[in-house]
Amino acid sequence: MSLTVPVLPEEIDPAWLPPEAFRPVGRRRTLVDGSGPLVDTVRGELAYACALFDGEVVVRDRGEPDAPSSYDLVLRVTEAGGSGDTRPGLGGAGGLGGPADVGELGAEGFVIERAGGATIVTASGQPGLLYGLFHVVRLGEDAFRGTRARETHRPSTALRMLDHWDNVAVHPVMGQVERGYAGGSLFWQDGRARQESERIRAYARLLAACGVNAVSVNNVNVHEAEAHLLTDRIDQVAHIAQALRRYGIRTHLSVTFAAPVVLGGLATADPLDEAVRGWWTEAVREVYSAIPDFGGFVVKADSEGRPGPFTYGRSHADGANMLAAALAPHGGTVHWRAFVYDHHQDWRDRSTDRARAAYDHFAPLDGEFADNAVLQVKHGPMDFQVREPVSPVLGALPRTRVAVEVQATQEYTGQQRHVCWLGPMWSEALRFRPEGEFRATVGELAGSGLVAVTNVGDDRFWTGHPLAQANLYTFGRLAWQPAADPRRILDEWIALTFPSASERLAAGLRAVLHGSWRTYEKYTAPLGVGFMVQPGHHYGPSVDGYEYSPWGTYHFADRDGIGVDRSAATGTGYAAQYAKPWAELYESVASCPDELLLFFHHVPYGHVLRSGKTVVQHIYDTHFEGVEEAEEARRVWAGLADLVEPAWHARVTERYEEQVRGAREWRDQVNSYFLRKSGIPDARGRTIY
Amino acid sequence: MSLTVPVLPEEIDPAWLPPEAFRPVGRRRTLVDGSGPLVDTVRGELAYACALFDGEVVVRDRGEPDAPSSYDLVLRVTEAGGSGDTRPGLGGAGGLGGPADVGELGAEGFVIERAGGATIVTASGQPGLLYGLFHVVRLGEDAFRGTRARETHRPSTALRMLDHWDNVAVHPVMGQVERGYAGGSLFWQDGRARQESERIRAYARLLAACGVNAVSVNNVNVHEAEAHLLTDRIDQVAHIAQALRRYGIRTHLSVTFAAPVVLGGLATADPLDEAVRGWWTEAVREVYSAIPDFGGFVVKADSEGRPGPFTYGRSHADGANMLAAALAPHGGTVHWRAFVYDHHQDWRDRSTDRARAAYDHFAPLDGEFADNAVLQVKHGPMDFQVREPVSPVLGALPRTRVAVEVQATQEYTGQQRHVCWLGPMWSEALRFRPEGEFRATVGELAGSGLVAVTNVGDDRFWTGHPLAQANLYTFGRLAWQPAADPRRILDEWIALTFPSASERLAAGLRAVLHGSWRTYEKYTAPLGVGFMVQPGHHYGPSVDGYEYSPWGTYHFADRDGIGVDRSAATGTGYAAQYAKPWAELYESVASCPDELLLFFHHVPYGHVLRSGKTVVQHIYDTHFEGVEEAEEARRVWAGLADLVEPAWHARVTERYEEQVRGAREWRDQVNSYFLRKSGIPDARGRTIY
Repeated sequence: MSLTVPVLPEEIDPAWLPPEAFRPVGRRRTLVDGSGPLVDTVRGELAYACALFDGEVVVRDRGEPDAPSSYDLVLRVTEAGGSGDTRPGLGGAGGLGGPADVGELGAEGFVIERAGGATIVTASGQPGLLYGLFHVVRLGEDAFRGTRARETHRPSTALRMLDHWDNVAVHPVMGQVERGYAGGSLFWQDGRARQESERIRAYARLLAACGVNAVSVNNVNVHEAEAHLLTDRIDQVAHIAQALRRYGIRTHLSVTFAAPVVLGGLATADPLDEAVRGWWTEAVREVYSAIPDFGGFVVKADSEGRPGPFTYGRSHADGANMLAAALAPHGGTVHWRAFVYDHHQDWRDRSTDRARAAYDHFAPLDGEFADNAVLQVKHGPMDFQVREPVSPVLGALPRTRVAVEVQATQEYTGQQRHVCWLGPMWSEALRFRPEGEFRATVGELAGSGLVAVTNVGDDRFWTGHPLAQANLYTFGRLAWQPAADPRRILDEWIALTFPSASERLAAGLRAVLHGSWRTYEKYTAPLGVGFMVQPGHHYGPSVDGYEYSPWGTYHFADRDGIGVDRSAATGTGYAAQYAKPWAELYESVASCPDELLLFFHHVPYGHVLRSGKTVVQHIYDTHFEGVEEAEEARRVWAGLADLVEPAWHARVTERYEEQVRGAREWRDQVNSYFLRKSGIPDARGRTIY
Repeated sequence: MSLTVPVLPEEIDPAWLPPEAFRPVGRRRTLVDGSGPLVDTVRGELAYACALFDGEVVVRDRGEPDAPSSYDLVLRVTEAGGSGDTRPGLGGAGGLGGPADVGELGAEGFVIERAGGATIVTASGQPGLLYGLFHVVRLGEDAFRGTRARETHRPSTALRMLDHWDNVAVHPVMGQVERGYAGGSLFWQDGRARQESERIRAYARLLAACGVNAVSVNNVNVHEAEAHLLTDRIDQVAHIAQALRRYGIRTHLSVTFAAPVVLGGLATADPLDEAVRGWWTEAVREVYSAIPDFGGFVVKADSEGRPGPFTYGRSHADGANMLAAALAPHGGTVHWRAFVYDHHQDWRDRSTDRARAAYDHFAPLDGEFADNAVLQVKHGPMDFQVREPVSPVLGALPRTRVAVEVQATQEYTGQQRHVCWLGPMWSEALRFRPEGEFRATVGELAGSGLVAVTNVGDDRFWTGHPLAQANLYTFGRLAWQPAADPRRILDEWIALTFPSASERLAAGLRAVLHGSWRTYEKYTAPLGVGFMVQPGHHYGPSVDGYEYSPWGTYHFADRDGIGVDRSAATGTGYAAQYAKPWAELYESVASCPDELLLFFHHVPYGHVLRSGKTVVQHIYDTHFEGVEEAEEARRVWAGLADLVEPAWHARVTERYEEQVRGAREWRDQVNSYFLRKSGIPDARGRTIY
């Protein structure tokens, strides 16, 4: 096993782990106390850092005499063993417990303290040691100053996962990565797993440094070629798993519910059929023989044309539990997506409401899912729009394990050509309290997992837009601690990514990122209405693009007003899917928050918002403001040219050109649409076409 | 050389040449008098027919004693020779002249008469003999009844051409045939010319039977693989040409203007550069050595992203004349498309008008084009919408050879899932008199050629929708005689396709076809406005689909009215591109024909049409009527089930299901759009969503 950190070609951006970030650690004398594969990874990291910055790392096995005072940094793991079956130590969701002195740390937690000139990190499991090391790296020189009271760190969320919508084969329309905006796949190349795995290891390292511990390696829309990863091509998955494992990341796989038919040649995929159950049991057994620490399956079933249990008159609990039963003996989990709705809806029918679908399908099944089945729920009821209410499914299934799914890849938020830092949006969702004040937050309820559709590809900057790296980093850290202040996380990202950042650079980065989500919201679809995008690729404006479609995505704008009546009194009843106080708050036009008004209500253009503006004037104003903010961000970015590596700066500059162009297009199309429809002129007389 | 007609697998539809159509000829005693390759084809046809129906065919060389009275049918060609260089005899555009007794027949004309119990067809060229034979087949038993005064037939149009938008390689989005709705390419398979050429020969035979004499074998958007057909892959084109030649059809090729750069490795494609001219001269020489009767090039230059002379600051005449110069020594022609416009237009700019573009680009170049350069002009100023005015380019270049291009493939007219017989539309355009009453028609002005983008593919019914065969047949016959009554042509098609058709079947076919274009117009875009289609694939409604696009395709609907002001007085000035009386007619709202009103004028929804209805009520009424007509056609078709071959009937039935569904979708989307926008209710209170 190599102890070195992954070495990438120079043109690949180091993202938030540039060598310079390791200077504070690398110039110290460090003791690593423990053994096992992830301890080896920690040793490798330190050896690399010390080689760069003239420090020293000493390794010893547990049991030798303690001499912390002769070290600047001590990293110690207290768990037994470390060789043989590596699975339990590798980021498993279950807490392993540990020696008394580290309390309830679990495998991933750690304790940090500083006294007597030494900084001491103690973990009860190897993953905890790895996370402890990256914590010290984040602290930088602060880790080695003065004294530091004992702090315990452990993730709030057991599973912190990235879903890759990567295909092995390149799809003629979607490309290789579905909804990917950063080049081809990091994992798959030329029809198989990327043979040279340095890039995958480097990715795993970045993920470990922000707390991610699970990755699903293929698209939830499982096409023909990818279906075979489950069986005859599992060796390809194992190849990737081997690289991810070095950084405590378990590998998951998206599978097709029809696998027994498609791969097994059975006549049915009925989840209650014994032959089907037997087929899955055997398939899973083979998976684990190839990948002993395999995490489990991700399943998109009965959704947008994917096969599922409805075909056989079975429930989604039947479907999920069948897979859970096959996975259970091996410690695996099935992630069952709740993204189930009618995508052949008749736009003429205003009583059907896609927003209701997930709740209507899944709330009645609460309590029926197996212990190792996790219901994976998108944070909003629709599909990752720039503004949605929090899904009422979150909080509606108290006896079900639930994971929250967010989308780091910017499908509807600028496709990594626009800056849109999603930290504040995710944070709002995670801090939402479905049952009202003093009750649990979504972040707390989602203890079974936080999942993001990833935003990376084989692009040299990982995420196409270099500033989109901040979304990936923020996701990982929010998954670790959903209650964290996203701006504090962003500051971490700035400090790591630009270790020698001046205050001017840091201030500039904050200026262009902090408000970028609201800016994007301003110049795109207003007041929570959503889906005013070009059909298919979802980039750029088309106000009526999804208005007469079968996708359940309407705004019902006419010459008098706009919005979807989702009230219980006169609309689709969606508002009543919420618990109090939300059901009441959303039910009434008077109390509904402005930013969600058109999601819940159909109102005249002259309706006066809580802000004091009319709806149509709000549309005009926000669209003009949004463009101005994008132009201002471009200006701020231009002023940072002397502080940022030229290629990095140039890529962002180029994307800002497109963002400003795109923002103007959004502004003009949306404003023109509403001026033409409402006939109400802009109160400030600005140009609308 | 085989003398047999092409033999196809039984499942391939014979279209308008079923064996039964040859019964009247096949049971006679026929003399064929002449020699040469196309005479051989005629002999093959007769041998086939006589074998089926127990007739007899006798062949002799010119000069033997005349004995017509012992034959029912005599087919005689008077031209000299027939072997060796076959080029002059094979449908060349130039009249070859002929012996005195056939007058000014040219190579393609023939004389038919019947006296003394014998029907005698005399041609001065071999192609004329072939067309004469198919004329006799069309006449059926009538050819052999009573006496028939001497009639001379010759095409009004020298070049009657089909352009295939076929790619050699399958395009990931467009498929193999761009805007093709009938399967893959007839010509190209597995990256090369279809090796088994029976299908191509059968296609050539169908084309000869309706008068087509030229085919361009590849997409005008010449992609990478297809560019090479001009040079290192010319053998593939020759393979197709060999099959087409059997039926008097010359082969043409679409080429990229950038060929000297792309294929030749030159630094420029500047048409005035000597090296470039030399490269083309040599390339053309090689083409003719592979295909001695090669027809020439089709070029889409400076159009929708294609390269062209503008890159080098040269005019389109410079570009076309360079290619013409290379082709001239060999008798070839360059077809230079006039479809040049700005496809990166800013929708905010209402002064730029795509409809003006072809005229603005080409009218000033009149007189500058070489004799063997033909300007190929779409019949309307936009792009094959269901309703457009006739292009003002037609008639504006009296000193330029002009061909008219129509679109048999139903890109904007239902994509061969809807019935839309285009005969009446083409006929209207061809009978339009650009300079007013008593002056020449478009059909007369287009003596240099009538061109259709073909609608065939490797589908078993050739055209996907079997009834779309009527469009292909009608095109060929209208090209031969642009002044012909399209309904008479349709009757020919019915009689050939269904040789034993009862009057009930013929009446049913007329009922579903005659009005189908107007029906399609009714339920789609109203009053000449056009382009209310889904972007990209162009199937199905999207009223705003091209409204905020860069394609120059707008309707400017707002809450008060709709339409494009193209008047000279207050609009884009497009109306002034016409000669009198059209310029005046179109200029005024009062005199503009209803069906073109929104093409030329922006009017309020309450504007009263010449029909007496308001614009918005016209929209509602036509959309309801259009659906009713489609439903009625489906009903009529269902009633013909006992009269039509089951597979043929079933395919049409299946398409009618889609047509009715699609028509309802059009109706509801368009009506809802205008109700929501105008707020004006339907006077008859019908359901609008």
